[in-house]
Order: sequence, then C-alpha cells, then structure tokens
Amino acid sequence: MTHRIALIPGDGIGQEVTPIGVRCLEALGKRPGLDFAFTEFPYSCEYYAEHGAMMPEDGIEHLRPHDAILLGAVGYPGVPDHVSLWGLLLPIRREFQQYVNLRPVRLLRGLTSALRNRGPEDINYLVVRENNEGEYSEIGGRLYDGLPEAMAVQATVITRKGSERILDYAFRLAQSRSRKRLAYATKSNGIKHTMPFWDEQVAAMAPNWPDVQVDGYHVDILAANFVTHPDWFDVVVGTNLFGDILSDLGPATAGGIGVAPSANINPSPDMPSMFEPVHGSAPDIAGQDIANPIAMIWTVVMMLEDLGEQEAADDLMGALETVTGEGRVLTRDLGGQAGTREFADRVLAELRG
Amino acid sequence: MTHRIALIPGDGIGQEVTPIGVRCLEALGKRPGLDFAFTEFPYSCEYYAEHGAMMPEDGIEHLRPHDAILLGAVGYPGVPDHVSLWGLLLPIRREFQQYVNLRPVRLLRGLTSALRNRGPEDINYLVVRENNEGEYSEIGGRLYDGLPEAMAVQATVITRKGSERILDYAFRLAQSRSRKRLAYATKSNGIKHTMPFWDEQVAAMAPNWPDVQVDGYHVDILAANFVTHPDWFDVVVGTNLFGDILSDLGPATAGGIGVAPSANINPSPDMPSMFEPVHGSAPDIAGQDIANPIAMIWTVVMMLEDLGEQEAADDLMGALETVTGEGRVLTRDLGGQAGTREFADRVLAELRG
Ligand SMILES: CC(C)[C@H](C(=O)O)[C@@H](O)C(=O)O
Ligand SMILES: CC(C)[C@H](C(=O)O)[C@@H](O)C(=O)O
Repeated sequence: MTHRIALIPGDGIGQEVTPIGVRCLEALGKRPGLDFAFTEFPYSCEYYAEHGAMMPEDGIEHLRPHDAILLGAVGYPGVPDHVSLWGLLLPIRREFQQYVNLRPVRLLRGLTSALRNRGPEDINYLVVRENNEGEYSEIGGRLYDGLPEAMAVQATVITRKGSERILDYAFRLAQSRSRKRLAYATKSNGIKHTMPFWDEQVAAMAPNWPDVQVDGYHVDILAANFVTHPDWFDVVVGTNLFGDILSDLGPATAGGIGVAPSANINPSPDMPSMFEPVHGSAPDIAGQDIANPIAMIWTVVMMLEDLGEQEAADDLMGALETVTGEGRVLTRDLGGQAGTREFADRVLAELRG
Repeated sequence: MTHRIALIPGDGIGQEVTPIGVRCLEALGKRPGLDFAFTEFPYSCEYYAEHGAMMPEDGIEHLRPHDAILLGAVGYPGVPDHVSLWGLLLPIRREFQQYVNLRPVRLLRGLTSALRNRGPEDINYLVVRENNEGEYSEIGGRLYDGLPEAMAVQATVITRKGSERILDYAFRLAQSRSRKRLAYATKSNGIKHTMPFWDEQVAAMAPNWPDVQVDGYHVDILAANFVTHPDWFDVVVGTNLFGDILSDLGPATAGGIGVAPSANINPSPDMPSMFEPVHGSAPDIAGQDIANPIAMIWTVVMMLEDLGEQEAADDLMGALETVTGEGRVLTRDLGGQAGTREFADRVLAELRG
C-alpha cells in the first residue's frame, strides 16, 4: 500500500529539513510492504512574491487527496506574518479540521535540559492543543483607525463541539498512558466568559473517565510549573493560544525548539493530517546547513504512527535516539559541531543498521 | 509626612504575609521623617461569605483617600475565582486606572535558579504588563447555553490610548536602564486583529526613543527564550494576558513564585497604586507559617520606591538580600527550614542593624 504524501517545504530552514524527512521516508520505503509517493507543492512566501498569494485558490483541493501533509516551515521577512500564516498554515489546519495539535515534550536520550538537575525521567509529557478555534479567530476589526480614539477588537470563540472533541482526544490519550493524568490550562479567574465555559466542559466530561486524574491550572501557573515541576505532567490540554505558548515553552526545557515535533491531526481517515516541526522558518540561520533536523525527523516519526506504520516509526525513533544518546554527532544548538546533513546522515546510517 | 496605607490582607497566605509587610513598614516608620498610617479593610472571600460581595458597594471610595494599597492575596476554595477576582482585585486595578503592572524578575543573591548554569548576572529583567484592558474584558457571553450548539464568545479590546500609555511607560523605563533594551510580546502571526494593531503602536513610538533597542517576539517564542536565553532581556512589555503569563514564568526561573513582587501603578499622584505579591492565596499551605514572605517584603520595597522613599526602600532590599545571600535562614520552598515569621524576624533584625 502506497502512502501519498504532500510535501510543502515552505520557507527558510523548512527547505533544508523537509528533504531530510523525505530521505528518512525513502530509506524506510525500501522495506517490503512500505511505500511512499511524494508530491511537492511550492506554496511559500516565494510563491507569494510571484503570485500574490501563498497558494493558489484551489490549493486546498490539491492537498486533499493525500494521506498526509509534511510541512517544513512558513514565513519570511518581507511578508507580514499574518499574511503568510493566514494564507497557508492556518487555512490547512482549518479546512481539514485538524483540530488536534499534538506536541510531545520529552527530553531525548543524551540531550541536556535547560533546567537544573532534570533528566529524561523528569520531562515526558504531551501537549494537546485545540487547533481550530478559540483565540485564533478571524472575527474582529478596528474602530477610529488612525485617530487617537483608535481601538482593535478581536473575538475569542469557544464552542462546545470544538472543546468536546479536543477534550475527548485528550482524555482518551491520558487514559492510554500509564500515569493517566490530564492537566488542563485555563484562565477563568481573569477571562470571564470563554474560560469558565471551557472549565465547565472539562467538569462535565471528567466523570466519564473515572480513572483519569484531572487537574486544572491557570495558564500562568501552568507555565511556571513547566519550569519548576515538569515531572507533574503527563497529558496537558489547552485552547489554541495556551497550547501554542505551552508547546514552545515545554521544548525549551527539553533540548530547545530545534527538536520539537508536531502533528496537526484530524482523527477521521477522510481528511489528511499535517505534520510539521514546531520551529519556524528561522530566516536568520537559513541556507547555512546548521538547522537542527531532529524536529523534522521526530515529526516524520509522528506521521508514520498516524499512518499506522508503528514499526517503521519505532525504528526511526530508535535510530534518532541512538544518535542523540551517543552524543558524538550533534548540531550547534545542542553544543555539537555537526551540520544539518551530517547529523541526518548519521541517523540514516543507524536506521539502515 | 505620613503615608496613608490601605491594607487588604485578603485570603489564605495573604493573611500571613501582610502583617510581615506591616512590620517592615513599622520598623522603618521609627526613623525620623518617615511615618505610616494604616487602615485595614477586611475585603476577602470571608467577607463574601458573610455579605455576598467581596467588598461593600462603596469599597473603592473607602480605598481612594490612601497613598497606596497593600494587598495580600485574593481567592479561596468555595468562591469561584471569577467571582472573587472580578469582585475585588480587578475592579481596584481598573477603577484607579492602575494601568501598569510592574513585575521585576531578578535572581536574588543566594537563591538558586531552576535553570542550569544560570546565576544572578543572567536573570535581571522587568516585566511591564498592561493592566486594564486587552484580553481581560467583561465583553462577551454565551449562545445556546446547555445545547450541543453552545458557544462562548469573549472580546479582547486594545485601545490606542491604552497601549500608548503602557508602551510609553515601558520605553521610558528601558531608557532609564543601562542596557536600554525593550522586548515586546506579540502574536500577530496568529491573532489577526488586535496583535497587528499592538505592533503598529510599538512601531509608531519606537522612533521617539532612538537609543532604546526594540525587539519583537511572538509570545510563544518569548516564553521559550525566558528559559533558554534569560540574559537577553532587560524590559519586557506585553498585553494583560501575555504579561500575566510571562510574569509568572519569569519568577519560576528565579527562585519561584514565592519571591515575586508586583506593583499595580497609576503614575499619576491623584490615584493610589496597589502593591501585591505575585503569588496567590495558596489555600493548600495557608495557616501553617510556611509561606515565603520574600514576595511581600520585596513588594513593600516597590511601594516605598513609589512613595518616594528610596532610602528606606534600599535599606529594606539590602536587608532582604543580605539574608538570602547568607542562605542560612530560608523557607521550605527554597530548600530551607525556616517558617514565615522566622525568616521575617531575620530580615527585620538585619534592617535594624
Ligand atoms: C488572580 C488573577 C486574576 C491575576 C491576574 O491574572 O491578573 C493574577 O494571576 C495576577 O497575575 O495578578
Ligand atoms: C506561526 C504561528 C501562526 C503558529 C501558531 O501560533 O499556531 C506557530 O507558532 C505554531 O505553533 O505552529
């Protein structure tokens, strides 16, 4: 069976790490019974410079017939972020109702935490981010623009359907883990309407998962606890914005943003999910072969799992952690000297055995 | 000249640390030319249990004729957070237009950072939080409550006046410091209306402060950088919610939430400012004489500075850091064995010389 993969290298270091993801898949695709077909899409800020749009009007339709989308990174100086992101990344997440953004935070073997006295046994949790609604809404605008009385207003929208489905995913995930703990981020003490509503959804669903221990934290304290008590966490669920912040903060304690993978998942088989490293396009280091490809390799592992290829996923993750565990070949952000490709070569050599 | 101080011990450990703040002030008040008059207000969750409101209807008017308000903490189990906070803390911040929430993040001498290999020279910045508008708004509500179609909507409102005044404060503060750096938190890549508006205010004002170096960060990356590069930061400004998150996260890297002070400032002399530790009421440890009084003592230092009593402020801060620097008497959260009062006694002994 052939897995059809849409590739969107995008901008900056996205163009350097995506080919590495492809090389991993090609190596695995040599195994009997495992096969990948790639279609590359040039959607990016460069595309925007030429066409005035991040992707063609029917871009979504081109992506639809794939089993998964592998995206590098989006964004480049000269194109305002809200243009590039709302023209590509965010529409994909929404049109395909990829309502789960799953972001593992785990200190890989051999890597050093930015936290004092913390090792791999202390940092191992999953951030589950609502990925379709909440604080990222298109509803809003300005009044009196340009005048002293100017203001901007933006609506956060949290629906019962939207919160139930992400919470359901998070509860299920927590139950599947040995510690069975679910922390949820809120801010119902300051944000008066949406956050108490979110809390009520959690409270209404919790009795259906009697073996899951549920703990609510205001997001400010939760962020603090990611630093002071990372070992408390197992599965952590939050709205779009809170999940965004927590899933950059977590990796900062676990080897840095250069290692963090993510999956934008629609659990239904009818729609493609999208897989992307958490790091952005990092224009400052682009084109120098110094970007860390760990995030991309780990992201490919998540894609393989989602495609049902657990054995291939385990093997790739095993190869990756063997290399980090040895600690001889590491990129600069991790204190090593290896280039992007050199590190990837080492992982591929390990994978081939 | 007598400084009239309104005291609101509030709930939980607020009741234990506020008397310590008072003892510091009383000790300093023995000096010639320095005098404090205290009026205590019982506004709290206990008050709510008796009267059905966190404070009387004219509570704000009772507080108004003071030079400063010293608040312990608000919130207790049984009273929903949004009731207790929107009934006391948040109205005070708003009615007195305390639009600056100033929160220093500095690793005190002798304390250990949760970050690996980071000392006092690495962690020394000020979070300036917009304190009156933004994401904490009363605008919003529900539709279809109780039905499957239920949703909650909440408006974030950012005004030009509101952002200009907080940014002006932040620029001024940055300029007064030796490094003259201002970082601002945004999320204009995801939050389409309010955040680009906020960015525009920064861009419009920056040319008026040519010697201040301005750097914008999306809040997710900013949070990550508080962990990986705390030494990059000098003054950090953010909207209400972002400032809230960042000012809990920062202290988590600098001795924990038990040490973090804050000032809710209206720079005009016509209205009282309010001073409060960042920690909450912490019902789990209340009444056990184990709360860390550092946050309250440091908060009193900020109050003294605001009242123009710089020498007294310096002396109290000096006494505090002498004690932390010795490291012999510390509370449990810092790895010591001292009780709340024992630690405070040691600081007071040092202050008296
Ligand atoms: C208690 C809560 C409403 C408050 C806030 O978010 O402003 C607190 O977290 C703070 O930081 O002072
Ligand atoms: C680029 C930006 C819009 C995006 C987000 O906030 O969702 C990114 O930070 C992420 O986490 O994927």
